[in-house]
Amino acid sequence: MSSDQLQHTSFHVYDTTLRDGAQQEGMNLSVADKLAIAPLLDELGVGFIEGGWPGAIPKDTEFFARAAKELHFKNAVLAAFGATRKAGTRAWDDPQVRALVDSQAPVVTLVAKSDIRHVERALRTTAAENLAMITDTVTYLVGEGRRVVLDAEHFFDGYRYDHAYALAAVKAAFAAGAEVVALCDTNGGTLPDVVAQIVGEVRAAVGHGPRLGIHAHNDSGVAVANSLAAVGAGADHVQGTVNGYGERTGNADLIAVVANLEIKEGRDLLAGPGALREATRIAHAIAEITNISPFARQPYIGASAFAHKAGLHASAIRVDPDLYQHIDPVRVGNDMRMLISEMAGRASIELKGRELGIELAGQVELLGRVTARVKEAEAQGYTYDAADASFELLLREEVDGERLAYFDLESWRVIVESIPGAPDQANAEATIKLTAGGTRTVATGEGNGPVNALDHALRKALLGTYPEIERFELIDFKVRIMDTMHGTDATTRVLVETMDSGAETTWRTVGVGPNIIEASFEAIVDSIVYGLLRAGVARR
Amino acid sequence: MSSDQLQHTSFHVYDTTLRDGAQQEGMNLSVADKLAIAPLLDELGVGFIEGGWPGAIPKDTEFFARAAKELHFKNAVLAAFGATRKAGTRAWDDPQVRALVDSQAPVVTLVAKSDIRHVERALRTTAAENLAMITDTVTYLVGEGRRVVLDAEHFFDGYRYDHAYALAAVKAAFAAGAEVVALCDTNGGTLPDVVAQIVGEVRAAVGHGPRLGIHAHNDSGVAVANSLAAVGAGADHVQGTVNGYGERTGNADLIAVVANLEIKEGRDLLAGPGALREATRIAHAIAEITNISPFARQPYIGASAFAHKAGLHASAIRVDPDLYQHIDPVRVGNDMRMLISEMAGRASIELKGRELGIELAGQVELLGRVTARVKEAEAQGYTYDAADASFELLLREEVDGERLAYFDLESWRVIVESIPGAPDQANAEATIKLTAGGTRTVATGEGNGPVNALDHALRKALLGTYPEIERFELIDFKVRIMDTMHGTDATTRVLVETMDSGAETTWRTVGVGPNIIEASFEAIVDSIVYGLLRAGVARR
Repeated sequence: MSSDQLQHTSFHVYDTTLRDGAQQEGMNLSVADKLAIAPLLDELGVGFIEGGWPGAIPKDTEFFARAAKELHFKNAVLAAFGATRKAGTRAWDDPQVRALVDSQAPVVTLVAKSDIRHVERALRTTAAENLAMITDTVTYLVGEGRRVVLDAEHFFDGYRYDHAYALAAVKAAFAAGAEVVALCDTNGGTLPDVVAQIVGEVRAAVGHGPRLGIHAHNDSGVAVANSLAAVGAGADHVQGTVNGYGERTGNADLIAVVANLEIKEGRDLLAGPGALREATRIAHAIAEITNISPFARQPYIGASAFAHKAGLHASAIRVDPDLYQHIDPVRVGNDMRMLISEMAGRASIELKGRELGIELAGQVELLGRVTARVKEAEAQGYTYDAADASFELLLREEVDGERLAYFDLESWRVIVESIPGAPDQANAEATIKLTAGGTRTVATGEGNGPVNALDHALRKALLGTYPEIERFELIDFKVRIMDTMHGTDATTRVLVETMDSGAETTWRTVGVGPNIIEASFEAIVDSIVYGLLRAGVARR
Repeated sequence: MSSDQLQHTSFHVYDTTLRDGAQQEGMNLSVADKLAIAPLLDELGVGFIEGGWPGAIPKDTEFFARAAKELHFKNAVLAAFGATRKAGTRAWDDPQVRALVDSQAPVVTLVAKSDIRHVERALRTTAAENLAMITDTVTYLVGEGRRVVLDAEHFFDGYRYDHAYALAAVKAAFAAGAEVVALCDTNGGTLPDVVAQIVGEVRAAVGHGPRLGIHAHNDSGVAVANSLAAVGAGADHVQGTVNGYGERTGNADLIAVVANLEIKEGRDLLAGPGALREATRIAHAIAEITNISPFARQPYIGASAFAHKAGLHASAIRVDPDLYQHIDPVRVGNDMRMLISEMAGRASIELKGRELGIELAGQVELLGRVTARVKEAEAQGYTYDAADASFELLLREEVDGERLAYFDLESWRVIVESIPGAPDQANAEATIKLTAGGTRTVATGEGNGPVNALDHALRKALLGTYPEIERFELIDFKVRIMDTMHGTDATTRVLVETMDSGAETTWRTVGVGPNIIEASFEAIVDSIVYGLLRAGVARR
């Protein structure tokens, strides 16, 4: 789709993950990261991708230069973000404004003040000069052939303080040729009823022609709702970020906004039919690139978003899943999952078995045995809702009548000792004796911690027989001390997440015991056994 | 405030962290966890604390039994959650209904079907019998002197499908004496405008007397907004969870809902003036107990919620912070942080020093040194919010110019090894060499885990010189692996809570390191040093 066509679509979905999303604490995107994320956003079907602030941030200048050569979007157009000219200059003389033109982005999004207090106290200029800055910069960029979006910063706070001035800023932008004015709740403090009221008033003031946008932040926990409220009141351009990334509490979660508007309100926003079905995969792929752990509870695309723990309702869910989920998760590329919990009954275990491709229906005795084992294990401290792989191993053991054994463990030992002369620092060394592939092996591993040392020793002992485990990587490790009030005598539960870098899949295993090292070792052994199993490796 | 007085307050804040929140994937609260969280909720000033489902979950039965003896709330009353009687039984014959009475909770919250499709397809009973189940169970419990809340499950979906039946369920509950009917968006799929419309219609149908509640889930990303929309349309009872815990995408984040209503709409909801000022501390303390990492972007109370990556605006923010934040973070006990500024923290460190009886005001150089050390330690993974004792040791070290040393540690070693013939079980043995009271000691301790063995060895080595430590008991031990994506190479933080059984006081210390044993040992050493210090013991 060319930018000409886009100009005539009825609704703008405008992504600012690469610019405002990148303001998130702890996020630091390289040019390569941005070049990898942008095509994913295009694939999601957004109309606009705001790439950064060329001229102000050197990395962003480079991003636009490389994007112009290297990126070819199917759906989206690139937008360069920048500010209106400085007070007392001319637009074409302001190097930051020139940098926006030089970026070659077809769309330029200008941030401008619309709250008179910010004009006077932060910008330290006059009401009239600020309006002139808007007029001049928009006029100049339109003259240079750019489509211009004006982000009216602090608009809602400004409108409540002095609505005439806030409206004057909006009207100045439209008069100068801006295609969109996005009303920004920059501090994120406005509630949905107020957003709806103010957007309605602005819509009435500017008439039905001009395009109004909404840019919401989540400081009050209502960014998605504010975006919906604005659209309900006449906005036809919505800004947000994937995974709700952004400064402080983040921006409006663009996928949640779009999913609500498409699925709940029947609008058609993303380019390409069924684009939303890729949302979960794309959101997780972007999380991999940003290196920020995905939030399991993220609406629509989170790992837990369609995960059910309710033992009592499991039988009803099996019969009629639509009674227990707000949408079919396939519509956003997610899956329903049944969690095995302490309220687990036979029905949820049967359902979980089916999910794993093991049909248990009708096998009353087997199902009873598995249910009893799960209950017993949970009483000891195991939890399977966060350890699917250990549950599958347990289930297969009951179905097959024996534990899957890729090797026979003889013994293991870990020594942790303080470094001589530095009793507040320590080293760890582990030794494992086992038989695999018909050979007895004694392997020693070192590490900066005992679990690390054991993991190294186990891999060393197995790698000769099972080179496949080279691909497995421990990516997360959680420890929970249960049964507090017993201090260090307490039971320890360890959850381990492992990734198969060849297949790009992960799985989670659990170990429990009074000894933290023993519990960790159990989870690590399970993780390797499961990895070999799912890779289709036979016992050697 | 007694429960009598509560009955007359104008608005219900109803917390279900311990019941619906505990449905979250990966959360598994022990009775001790619940007994520790409930007083924090009371301190937050909620009116109702839903503790669990006695009779259905054995742990919850035990919680209510112990709560009745051990917990004494200032503000809240306990609510027991359960279901209406089974079809075809009598309420007083249903053991789960009896268990609600036996729990001794003054409030009983009954979940009931209000969606005719769920009545027929999940409950497999008739429309009339479901209404009779509501009537009978409410009548019975009111007759037993209980205040009854009816959670009308799947209400919004049910109302849209068959509003007459959904309303009939609500009216049956009120007619039987229910104090509240909470309208539940169980699947979380309803958007705010629909919530507002339906709550308004129900309010019109039942009149102004009866109390209507809202129970929202976040599947569409709008649970907070739905709660606000319901209150705007006439609900006067709001349910939610701290940190938005809950199944799938979680429940409405109760702190965000309350903060919006109190701060933005001027209502007065929580018991005790200024209770909201404790919100950040309480939410984080609860996260420590659930052992679920707090979400940095959580509205109001998140670590990033008032963190500015300011750059260009830094000076403007310093001059006029209110231009850049939606509320003063102090109102919810949070702090503005400038992500590049080194000014952050001084005020709170000065305040903490004062709390510990160490006046730092005016001691610019000392305060700067302490602030720098805290920042450096926090960058390494230490946290002093949950480890006051370790902070006090750090502070005294800076004030005195040297570390408090009751003994000189020479070296330590731990060996963990599998038991011969049983490689899935392990033993631990620790050896410590140190000098105390002028004598060099080598002591060995055994334990079922490495930390346990080290703790035993350290006590053995010190007991001759410092018999006071006999009274110290480790009562809690928590481990958090930080920096995921590194697996077992990650940094480990250990929090230890110790009790002086003579003085009935407890204190908490922290240790951090790449090695879990080393981190644990650091926290244990701190705990003993601090215990001796607070007992007024001099170095021997």
